[in-house]
Amino acid sequence: ISDLGPWLYGRAVALWVFGRSDPRQAVFAAKAGLALAIVSLLVFVDDHPFFREDLGKHYVWAILTVVVVFEFSIGATFSKGLNRGIGTLLAGGLALGCAELSTLTGKLEEVFLVISIFVAGSVATYLKLYPTLKPYEYGFRVFLITFCYVMVSGYRTNEFIETATSRFFLIALGAAVGIGVNILIYPIWAGEDLHNLVVKNFMGVAKSLEGCVNGYLICMEYERIPSKILLYQAHEDNLYSGYRSAVQSTSQEDSLLGFAEWEPPHGKYKMFNYPWKSYIRVSGALRHCAFMVMALHGCILSEIQAPPEYRQIFSAELHRVGIAGAKVLRELGDKVKTMTKLTSIDILAEVHAAAEELQKKIDQKSYLLVNAESWEVSKQGNDTTKDGTSDVIASSKPILREKSLHELRSVKGSMMNTSYSRFDSSSTMDMTFRLSLWPGRKSFHPADPIPSEQESKTYESASALSLATFASLLIEFVARLQNIVDAFEELSVKAEFKDPVIEPGEE
Amino acid sequence: ISDLGPWLYGRAVALWVFGRSDPRQAVFAAKAGLALAIVSLLVFVDDHPFFREDLGKHYVWAILTVVVVFEFSIGATFSKGLNRGIGTLLAGGLALGCAELSTLTGKLEEVFLVISIFVAGSVATYLKLYPTLKPYEYGFRVFLITFCYVMVSGYRTNEFIETATSRFFLIALGAAVGIGVNILIYPIWAGEDLHNLVVKNFMGVAKSLEGCVNGYLICMEYERIPSKILLYQAHEDNLYSGYRSAVQSTSQEDSLLGFAEWEPPHGKYKMFNYPWKSYIRVSGALRHCAFMVMALHGCILSEIQAPPEYRQIFSAELHRVGIAGAKVLRELGDKVKTMTKLTSIDILAEVHAAAEELQKKIDQKSYLLVNAESWEVSKQGNDTTKDGTSDVIASSKPILREKSLHELRSVKGSMMNTSYSRFDSSSTMDMTFRLSLWPGRKSFHPADPIPSEQESKTYESASALSLATFASLLIEFVARLQNIVDAFEELSVKAEFKDPVIEPGEE
Repeated sequence: ISDLGPWLYGRAVALWVFGRSDPRQAVFAAKAGLALAIVSLLVFVDDHPFFREDLGKHYVWAILTVVVVFEFSIGATFSKGLNRGIGTLLAGGLALGCAELSTLTGKLEEVFLVISIFVAGSVATYLKLYPTLKPYEYGFRVFLITFCYVMVSGYRTNEFIETATSRFFLIALGAAVGIGVNILIYPIWAGEDLHNLVVKNFMGVAKSLEGCVNGYLICMEYERIPSKILLYQAHEDNLYSGYRSAVQSTSQEDSLLGFAEWEPPHGKYKMFNYPWKSYIRVSGALRHCAFMVMALHGCILSEIQAPPEYRQIFSAELHRVGIAGAKVLRELGDKVKTMTKLTSIDILAEVHAAAEELQKKIDQKSYLLVNAESWEVSKQGNDTTKDGTSDVIASSKPILREKSLHELRSVKGSMMNTSYSRFDSSSTMDMTFRLSLWPGRKSFHPADPIPSEQESKTYESASALSLATFASLLIEFVARLQNIVDAFEELSVKAEFKDPVIEPGEE
Repeated sequence: ISDLGPWLYGRAVALWVFGRSDPRQAVFAAKAGLALAIVSLLVFVDDHPFFREDLGKHYVWAILTVVVVFEFSIGATFSKGLNRGIGTLLAGGLALGCAELSTLTGKLEEVFLVISIFVAGSVATYLKLYPTLKPYEYGFRVFLITFCYVMVSGYRTNEFIETATSRFFLIALGAAVGIGVNILIYPIWAGEDLHNLVVKNFMGVAKSLEGCVNGYLICMEYERIPSKILLYQAHEDNLYSGYRSAVQSTSQEDSLLGFAEWEPPHGKYKMFNYPWKSYIRVSGALRHCAFMVMALHGCILSEIQAPPEYRQIFSAELHRVGIAGAKVLRELGDKVKTMTKLTSIDILAEVHAAAEELQKKIDQKSYLLVNAESWEVSKQGNDTTKDGTSDVIASSKPILREKSLHELRSVKGSMMNTSYSRFDSSSTMDMTFRLSLWPGRKSFHPADPIPSEQESKTYESASALSLATFASLLIEFVARLQNIVDAFEELSVKAEFKDPVIEPGEE
């Protein structure tokens, strides 16, 4: 019990920090309390005959409706409220019809009652599982509750109509209070959230892209790759979290879209049928690019790594593409944020020029990317390259990396640990445990510690090709940017984004 | 109205087909109807004094509980039932405490009532937004409803304790009926669904991998890339749907995991604390591989394509890796399905051997992957390769492809449309509309239809490097397989999978 004090204090601090991070949550909580308090005030109205009779029995419906309808965003509140209203109306109507029928059945009234509840329960439950009706799941639930309730209490009191109407009246009251408080006081819009989410995704992917390119150039290595990355779980890693949250946000976007479509025009979104779907399309196009960033990150995670000297040679070009690509993403994200159309200047000009330059550089230096020694062609030229890169070739070696899950046998490492001391010598302990290694695992047996020359050459060529892969993926990323621009232009026309302020000197 | 008949018929057929696809849904619907019918039977018990008094007023709680608690899987039913029970208990206790306090306040009873509802409403709403408490969201809702209801009806009748206890009794009754029917008749387990989902993901990724490798080798092309792929939406495409559903299933897995952890040992899962989390880990490792398949698919979608003649040269090796990789995935999926441990034979031996062979082949033929002409080294060797591939080089040209969203200017096409007639001539119509093209868009103006020699060489080298990228990605995919095997071994130990039947002749 002596631990309870600090524990409670810790919780309280966590809640306070949580509240500070997004003040809307605290405001929303206060609104919910207010709406409940307002509804509970009705309990004091006890001189009106209509109220007096019903409140005792059905008062709970008003409270229940407020609790259920009071969702975080306006769109969610509307959609739940409407589901509830329609479900109640339909159920009430159907129950009244069944009540009329049940009076005709005479003595079989009890049997009819149970059978009709069974049939209604089965049909409504079946329908709500049907994919296209899933969004109305809540309406089906309300339908079931109301139907059963009206049927059952009607049987006891024979007041079907009164039960249905008073229930509907109190639900309408609860919904009015809930929706009124939620909209009139500091409304929270799902559309706004969707808008911000798309902007955040742009910034996240830009950050990941920049991080991946820069990380690749400084030959960043993971001492141990966090197993969360290998298992695609959430993880605080600068390169990883940005693209992961963009890729993972699909379901969040879908639910926000479902709510945003219910919201009336408001604030910056002054239009009926606001094109929220186009925001999703922009985000989808961004995701298509984010997959390439993911693959770039894969090159950093990979076991086979290009030698740093080679990376240096392409450093300027890779860097330029990375900077320009991230700049385009940030600029597009900013345009989405400020709801501005693109200028007449081609936003992709710089990144395309940078990618082309990278492509040309690869073209010129492509002999670095392959293992020319193994070619069956004359090799005398290799010794006298014009720009003195032959010494680079001679000095560079493929680099292997230690991994947490699949450690490489350090056979190669022993060949070069004079120059590369990245191998964590402590991990050789579990080497006997993990003999299943790759690549080259078949020929690198402990009994045969020195790999054949051919094996080691295969390594070298793989390591150089990995640089080519990185560059190709980066170029493919640039190619996919057009996609985002197209989706953005569609959005900016449909959503009537404002024209950019044209700076002097522009056409 | 004449359209209504066919429309209804069409809906009915769709529902029937839906029911046939997974009979569990229809069974579940019938179970729900049954549970409601059983609860409604209680309305006929009217000679017991306890029932008689309460049923009229609070009967609705039993119905409400059944409707709310009756979830598709056993785990979801338990978790909702428990949330409901604890929420009701806590709220009842707190409301009784508040009631005691309110009698002390004397004349201020009304004020105290409203304030306590406001405070409880705000605090509960705030807490339920806190991330770690999100799973208990439903419990907080029930808490709020019960608290307000007990407070309000207690005020009117001054029977706080009776309201709270009868409510709890009826909720327990409803929960017992709901849970009883759901478990005793044809139970549907979330754990089973999770298990099957993981197996399905394995098969989907294997199908995508095979499809991508085979598609790449037969130079499959999309006439127009479906915009759904470019926007990462669901789409029926053999290569795409397999890995997409594996990547997209995270949220489904998480919710199934949340339910499966509530389920008691049953069927094949005879263990307390069954390691459902390890299934998620296996699925995460599979997803990490699926991203590479995604990148392979990106090579097929890409604008810059390797010439078919080059692909033919690596055809056997690429094919072997694709087959072996898909076989490993299917085998692992099958082991998960049948809950069998791995045999002592290394499951990855063949795929590693295949990947190594591919790597060697790339190494030998790497001159095909780069544009040797642009090298600043002696080139006389290129004319006399031993295996006669020089004619292949001479005859091959980079291939461009028509795209729906970013069509390439057919300037290059006009240079080679004698041999490649893939360009859809109708699409030249909107060429004036889409002048923003890439790559080479700056230099390929309509006024200057013939590209400079340098531009076209840059193309050629990019197109050959795209083959190297495909191969590197495939090799990285193979490297990531170890990850899945490790995760699977962890699962197979923790979940006590059965030992494989060792065939004769094996050690």
